[in-house]
Amino acid sequence: TPESAERTSVPGVATGLAVTGAGGDVLFIEATEMEGEPGLVLTGQLGDVMKESVQIALSYLRSRDQAGKLADHRIHVHVPAGAVPKDGPSAGVTMVTALASLASGRPVKSSVGMTGEVTLQGKVLPIGGVKQKLLAAHRAGLTGVIIPKRNEPDLDDLPESVRDSLNIHPVADVADVLALALEDAEPAASTLAA
Amino acid sequence: TPESAERTSVPGVATGLAVTGAGGDVLFIEATEMEGEPGLVLTGQLGDVMKESVQIALSYLRSRDQAGKLADHRIHVHVPAGAVPKDGPSAGVTMVTALASLASGRPVKSSVGMTGEVTLQGKVLPIGGVKQKLLAAHRAGLTGVIIPKRNEPDLDDLPESVRDSLNIHPVADVADVLALALEDAEPAASTLAA
Amino acid sequence: TPESAERTSVPGVATGLAVTGAGGDVLFIEATEMEGEPGLVLTGQLGDVMKESVQIALSYLRSRDQAGKLADHRIHVHVPAGAVPKDGPSAGVTMVTALASLASGRPVKSSVGMTGEVTLQGKVLPIGGVKQKLLAAHRAGLTGVIIPKRNEPDLDDLPESVRDSLNIHPVADVADVLALALEDAEPAASTLAA
Amino acid sequence: TPESAERTSVPGVATGLAVTGAGGDVLFIEATEMEGEPGLVLTGQLGDVMKESVQIALSYLRSRDQAGKLADHRIHVHVPAGAVPKDGPSAGVTMVTALASLASGRPVKSSVGMTGEVTLQGKVLPIGGVKQKLLAAHRAGLTGVIIPKRNEPDLDDLPESVRDSLNIHPVADVADVLALALEDAEPAASTLAA
Amino acid sequence: TPESAERTSVPGVATGLAVTGAGGDVLFIEATEMEGEPGLVLTGQLGDVMKESVQIALSYLRSRDQAGKLADHRIHVHVPAGAVPKDGPSAGVTMVTALASLASGRPVKSSVGMTGEVTLQGKVLPIGGVKQKLLAAHRAGLTGVIIPKRNEPDLDDLPESVRDSLNIHPVADVADVLALALEDAEPAASTLAA
Amino acid sequence: TPESAERTSVPGVATGLAVTGAGGDVLFIEATEMEGEPGLVLTGQLGDVMKESVQIALSYLRSRDQAGKLADHRIHVHVPAGAVPKDGPSAGVTMVTALASLASGRPVKSSVGMTGEVTLQGKVLPIGGVKQKLLAAHRAGLTGVIIPKRNEPDLDDLPESVRDSLNIHPVADVADVLALALEDAEPAASTLAA
Ligand SMILES: [Ca+2]
Ligand SMILES: [Ca+2]
Ligand SMILES: [Ca+2]
Ligand SMILES: [Ca+2]
Ligand SMILES: [Ca+2]
Ligand SMILES: [Ca+2]
Ligand SMILES: [Ca+2]
Ligand SMILES: [Ca+2]
Ligand SMILES: [Ca+2]
Ligand SMILES: [Ca+2]
Ligand SMILES: [Ca+2]
Ligand SMILES: [Ca+2]
Repeated sequence: TPESAERTSVPGVATGLAVTGAGGDVLFIEATEMEGEPGLVLTGQLGDVMKESVQIALSYLRSRDQAGKLADHRIHVHVPAGAVPKDGPSAGVTMVTALASLASGRPVKSSVGMTGEVTLQGKVLPIGGVKQKLLAAHRAGLTGVIIPKRNEPDLDDLPESVRDSLNIHPVADVADVLALALEDAEPAASTLAA
Repeated sequence: TPESAERTSVPGVATGLAVTGAGGDVLFIEATEMEGEPGLVLTGQLGDVMKESVQIALSYLRSRDQAGKLADHRIHVHVPAGAVPKDGPSAGVTMVTALASLASGRPVKSSVGMTGEVTLQGKVLPIGGVKQKLLAAHRAGLTGVIIPKRNEPDLDDLPESVRDSLNIHPVADVADVLALALEDAEPAASTLAA
Repeated sequence: TPESAERTSVPGVATGLAVTGAGGDVLFIEATEMEGEPGLVLTGQLGDVMKESVQIALSYLRSRDQAGKLADHRIHVHVPAGAVPKDGPSAGVTMVTALASLASGRPVKSSVGMTGEVTLQGKVLPIGGVKQKLLAAHRAGLTGVIIPKRNEPDLDDLPESVRDSLNIHPVADVADVLALALEDAEPAASTLAA
Repeated sequence: TPESAERTSVPGVATGLAVTGAGGDVLFIEATEMEGEPGLVLTGQLGDVMKESVQIALSYLRSRDQAGKLADHRIHVHVPAGAVPKDGPSAGVTMVTALASLASGRPVKSSVGMTGEVTLQGKVLPIGGVKQKLLAAHRAGLTGVIIPKRNEPDLDDLPESVRDSLNIHPVADVADVLALALEDAEPAASTLAA
Repeated sequence: TPESAERTSVPGVATGLAVTGAGGDVLFIEATEMEGEPGLVLTGQLGDVMKESVQIALSYLRSRDQAGKLADHRIHVHVPAGAVPKDGPSAGVTMVTALASLASGRPVKSSVGMTGEVTLQGKVLPIGGVKQKLLAAHRAGLTGVIIPKRNEPDLDDLPESVRDSLNIHPVADVADVLALALEDAEPAASTLAA
Repeated sequence: TPESAERTSVPGVATGLAVTGAGGDVLFIEATEMEGEPGLVLTGQLGDVMKESVQIALSYLRSRDQAGKLADHRIHVHVPAGAVPKDGPSAGVTMVTALASLASGRPVKSSVGMTGEVTLQGKVLPIGGVKQKLLAAHRAGLTGVIIPKRNEPDLDDLPESVRDSLNIHPVADVADVLALALEDAEPAASTLAA
């Protein structure tokens, strides 16, 4: 899928799945960091629950010493499009993935979309709209999707053709999301020359 | 009970009992800490009274020198599910227990659920919904419950079969809650080798 | 009276008298302090006027160099029950007493309840509901009450039996409240051994 | 007048004149200072305009190097009674006088009441309710009142008996208010012994 | 004009022209500075747009290194009368003039009133109410007025007698306002003696 | 076009295109910086989405180390006219351009207007009102316009005469906007002398 390939080519961007008034849709979580006083800037007209999702994602990584330089830097998380209000907890796994990608420098696999609430312990809780979200992932050309394990029963509602063309990964812990979604760290240029 | 066993396997998580529109329910209080500027991050769509409960819990421990590194670290308390508004003072004992577990490194016993308001002095005040909360504890497979001493009369409303299958601990001081609910500190690996 | 005896056994807790929808009642002001960045945490669903009362109480003590370590420590004042909204200036003398007790380490006498607004200079201003408050003090087993001097005329409304069983102290300055309500400093353990 | 004599016996308290729903009234502005982080605490249910009056009063003194230690200390200004909402700019001269008294250690004359808006340059602007305010001053036993020069025409409305019994000082600059209202600095105890 | 002469006799005060419900009026912008933590205190019941005008005025001067000590000091800008709500961008040139006067120590000419919005680059944008504002300037005895160049066509509405008695300066850049409105720096007393 | 030539003659000012109730219009984004505590001051009655646009623009530059001294200085962004409320994400490219111009010292070309939302990665997203905006650019005498690549289909609605008289640059990445819109750095005066 050209768009997610281009969007996720740099570390810090992950592909999420959302439900809108017009069915499911793919959205991108963009995270970046900069030197300066530590803090978290959130843009994209995020509602209260979604803002809390970003705090949960960051605390999950910081409390496990997986936030790297993020703990000391200024972090900005944006969810385009800028004028569209967004809310809900189901972007939790995508938030953790975008921030873990930024912290580690490992890009997110461009073929993978994801949805799921995350708790502070990293448990993945079920969300709504699985059918619409996976149809949207299929339309957008994604080949892998990550969903909460407790949402497995919702897969029955999916057309068989769609279910067959997607690698569907039900997960219970966000650590498994990171293992599935992050590219291996790219070898540094100097080691390639050996 | 598999879920509370898994959820409370790490220090910082305690099992509470709540009343919702649909009867009683079990909820988990998740607390974690990280280096950084001291402060308290609260998520889970907590109402004003519940936010005050967390402050009371933390001050109770800090003023007694039982907060350990928590006083100097950044603390995040989350109550899943992220999109469900929650309020009321009755999670007070659970808040103290989760934070004391995090501060001491002693996990919370996975078989125990609890409910009760706490004052800044650690007195445990009565709460509502005892019957529904204990039925929910029973359904969830918990074998021990901690309730405020002043709620003992409410136990009459409980079916005898339920009352017999639960170890019910009425308490007047939150210090007794901690004595009942926290696991012993695990011996360090090095001392086991002796 | 067992409850106030237990509640006021540690420094920082004072017994106030309040008017609720259901007549008069006894309430406890709990104050505690901890190391950390100086500041004032207020809980108990306090309204604007009651929050200002705490600030006035603290400034009264600080400006007279009677706040001891409180000026440099983090202070938490809580008024149970946690979910009941409270407001009004009439807990002023109780706030000063709780904080002075905490600062000095001298417990508050468990037999004494009090009511009265305090100004920044320490003047005690009249309040309402004297009759209901003193009836409540009597019911709760208190033997001494402190009221504003300007409320003396309200004592006529009190049943003679109640008036006779209470030591009623009308005061005009909060310094007199402290002299009446605080226990003597307890001799240190080491000096007892002499 | 006994009350103003007692209230203004310490530096930092000045007697103002106000209009309430029930005619004119005397009010006291109480200012105190304490060590700690610089800042301004305002209590007494003050409205926006009255809060701005305090800021103007303090800036007037600070910009003229007349604030002494106030610039570096924590300042608390309270206007009893604590539960009565108050607003309007006409307490401006009283605010300047209370703060100047606190900064200089010179008490305010207990026989003097005052009213008038102050600008940042110290100009005294006219206010309303002169008649009711002066009647209230008279009733309270004050013998001197300070009013804005531009309010002189309002004196015609005053009963002659009242006008004759009050020393009325119309002023255009707040420096004149301070010259009229502050007691001379009291000689230090050591110099009295000479 | 006696009032503006007296009001603008010290640096930091500039004469503005405003439109009120009752026609045009003259207002004074008072700016002062004091040592202490840098910051901007705004009083006079200013609306959002007028508060932004002060920030624009200050940034204009600071970004051009014309703010002198203002950048490091605490600044207070007040617009009497204190209880009258004020809003709109047309006091922009007056704000810049008052702050530039304060920064430079050069008083504002007492004969000059002004109106005009200012951009961050110092461009002077057109405003409304030119006729009423100039009539008010005339009534108040001002002899010079500064207006935006783009408002020149509005001068046609002015009675010829008024237009003839005022020196009207249309300007496009606020630098020209400062050149017209600020007095020359007064020679220091020591150099006068030479 | 005289106005944009004059307005954009200094670094930090870029020409945007907007849709108002009365069709399209040209607006100027003014950015300036000053020494002092780092921070972002926004004026011009900007709505939430437009304020977020400025934060996105600044983070885009800071995270790419293209913000130069802006990261450590105080930045003020103003959008005249001061009293007109403005909102929406379509000034994103103009915000990035104004800030990049300020950071680099390279002025923006006075002949170029622009419109387009920007994401945190610098992707240019489509906006509305292309026809009205380009008509406004034409009326204002601009000769070049930058629009989002995804808005190319909207060009069909434009009169051929207008389309022919404008150099229209569809872009997908804001880096291309900067390459098109910024003047070359002017050689320093000293090198001119060689
Ligand atoms: Ca960098
Ligand atoms: Ca959702
Ligand atoms: Ca750690
Ligand atoms: Ca409850
Ligand atoms: Ca301690
Ligand atoms: Ca002192
Ligand atoms: Ca009351
Ligand atoms: Ca008034
Ligand atoms: Ca000075
Ligand atoms: Ca205006
Ligand atoms: Ca500079
Ligand atoms: Ca728009």
